[in-house]
Amino acid sequence: MKKLEDYVLSIPDFPEEGIIFRDITTVLEDADGFALAVDSYKELLKDVDFDVIVGVESRGFVFGAALANMLHKPLILARKPGKLPRETISQDYELEYGKDSIEMHTDSIKSGQRAVIIDDLIATGGTVEAVAKLVERLGGSVAAIAFMIELAGLNGRKRLEGYDIRSAIVYEGK
Amino acid sequence: MKKLEDYVLSIPDFPEEGIIFRDITTVLEDADGFALAVDSYKELLKDVDFDVIVGVESRGFVFGAALANMLHKPLILARKPGKLPRETISQDYELEYGKDSIEMHTDSIKSGQRAVIIDDLIATGGTVEAVAKLVERLGGSVAAIAFMIELAGLNGRKRLEGYDIRSAIVYEGK
Repeated sequence: MKKLEDYVLSIPDFPEEGIIFRDITTVLEDADGFALAVDSYKELLKDVDFDVIVGVESRGFVFGAALANMLHKPLILARKPGKLPRETISQDYELEYGKDSIEMHTDSIKSGQRAVIIDDLIATGGTVEAVAKLVERLGGSVAAIAFMIELAGLNGRKRLEGYDIRSAIVYEGK
Repeated sequence: MKKLEDYVLSIPDFPEEGIIFRDITTVLEDADGFALAVDSYKELLKDVDFDVIVGVESRGFVFGAALANMLHKPLILARKPGKLPRETISQDYELEYGKDSIEMHTDSIKSGQRAVIIDDLIATGGTVEAVAKLVERLGGSVAAIAFMIELAGLNGRKRLEGYDIRSAIVYEGK
């Protein structure tokens, strides 16, 4: 029986030498692979008590949506700037060169709500750290942050110290 | 009991006078609303025979993913330029001012496969028309195109003439 990692396509030296790109579209494009991925998130979170799922644009929308629907939880979108139609709060985060920001609707998290943040992959953890800050600024708490893939060599887990980080597949490199 | 349209937030005169903006994030943010939305897509497609679901970036990812997982179908992503990591084909489409394009992996649809295209809303239909062309250029066929919301006043259905268009909620205006 195929395991989840068997559905991930690894592309060596892409986009640059020494980096192995992990392509998750091959997981989605196989109905069994996709089911296994969503079940993996469910399994990762089975002991976590939470109210809402926050999906991070845009591959976090894919897994967050499937999981939210399966578990009958609300799905909150954390989006790139200018994409959400109502009043938002914004959080900056640093990229390798320059910075970016991410937004949530100000009324998307109610005070005291426990959120699980979902993204496909943790690299340096910058985006997800910004989303965690948004949840907290809105009066919520971060119950856990779950990924299908963790690139351990990029130390995202260290950056997110203090948060409960869970990942289904850990690759040691970058 | 609340109906699907009760979860949609309508914002009059946004982004300009005479336009009513239909905000679907309020549907997602309610677990019952989200479940109702996904069930509506399922109901719309119950008599359609198809192999894969194509989700259109990025709100189409949300509904496409939940539906694909529920129906145990592969999920193919139709993405904005430069987002997919492997070899892609691209299709241009016209916007009110200028043009844009959308891409799919060249190996994402196999010859003869029947695709259902999912997006949240049909306005002029330009993006989805481009996605339908990509499916056909890859040797597949479009079994149906399903939306949660149709803005009938923008005539997207006419633009997509010849395709099987299904929508859960029809608003007469723009």
